[in-house]
Amino acid sequence: MKQEFSCGLSPIVGLRFSIHPMADHFIDIIKGALQEVDTTNVWMHSDDVSTVLRGKQVHVFDTAKAMILHASKTGAHVAFNGTFSIGCPGDSAGDVYLEKDDLVLNEPHIRELKQYVSSQFALYPMNNPDYMSVIYKEVDRAKERGVFNESMHYASGLHGDIHDVFSFLEESFTHARSDEHKHLVMTINMSINSPSHKGTI
Amino acid sequence: MKQEFSCGLSPIVGLRFSIHPMADHFIDIIKGALQEVDTTNVWMHSDDVSTVLRGKQVHVFDTAKAMILHASKTGAHVAFNGTFSIGCPGDSAGDVYLEKDDLVLNEPHIRELKQYVSSQFALYPMNNPDYMSVIYKEVDRAKERGVFNESMHYASGLHGDIHDVFSFLEESFTHARSDEHKHLVMTINMSINSPSHKGTI
Repeated sequence: MKQEFSCGLSPIVGLRFSIHPMADHFIDIIKGALQEVDTTNVWMHSDDVSTVLRGKQVHVFDTAKAMILHASKTGAHVAFNGTFSIGCPGDSAGDVYLEKDDLVLNEPHIRELKQYVSSQFALYPMNNPDYMSVIYKEVDRAKERGVFNESMHYASGLHGDIHDVFSFLEESFTHARSDEHKHLVMTINMSINSPSHKGTI
Repeated sequence: MKQEFSCGLSPIVGLRFSIHPMADHFIDIIKGALQEVDTTNVWMHSDDVSTVLRGKQVHVFDTAKAMILHASKTGAHVAFNGTFSIGCPGDSAGDVYLEKDDLVLNEPHIRELKQYVSSQFALYPMNNPDYMSVIYKEVDRAKERGVFNESMHYASGLHGDIHDVFSFLEESFTHARSDEHKHLVMTINMSINSPSHKGTI
């Protein structure tokens, strides 16, 4: 048994998210996006409030980005709210999806789609006395990657093309945890095609 | 200097939130709600992604609940996403709002408004080795208060009338922190007037 699986911990990554199109035909937009996304590599379950994806990190991020892009390419003003999580004690169900290979299924179909996003993210490294240093380091990383927008209470503002923002988020989610501090939560809120973004890029 | 203010910590409570009406006239719904809410007792700032409220706990919860109710009484399908926070190291700006008295300004105007909400909440007690026990205890509290809906990955489902759900959330936010572990984050997502709730209450 590999070390990552000890202590009831699993390397499975989860994302609980909602997509909110601010439009009367919100159901069509969400259903349309769902039809275009390839969810083969993740376990997925929806309820009346949100949807959860679970699987390998690479596939969870790939699927989430595709879902957002397929919803936002309709031109509708769309909000995305997500909580990424890994290493929650006792989290193991659905580990079968960890057997998938690393070939991303959505990226080839969305690579060329450009989309400006304004977003706010927060990191919660659990049970880590040094968590504020971890957070400051990741904010510095956002600045280095060119996606940092502004400092604010309870979050950090990120913006830019969705591919750059997602690259940073996945990189940050990888670095803000360690073998010693496995349980990490990252929240992200995105605003897309907002009337207040007209002319931004 | 009171103990609560030591170590750069402050008893100020913050909430970063967004309200997403799934309707073409989302701007009118949000602006209408903002006009009806009394925000005298909180510091408030909005950007292109979210709005932050800061002040005494009682006023932050009162203002947030009023904002949701005024938006949802339009009948629109509305999603609310919020992150409550207290005790973040270094958090002190805006402490002037802590001088307000405890008289809630919105509750008298919204008390009679009934509204079913389905929601999902998560607690992140920071730098607390015993955080999982804190979370389990609050889930038990939700069951005792009659607002627990279901267990799920990365959150717990709550539902019922918004007043009962908010009472529980404020009670839980109070009890999941301690003098030793002051930094607490609580996320909450609500779905209101969803087409899938028809006939729920």
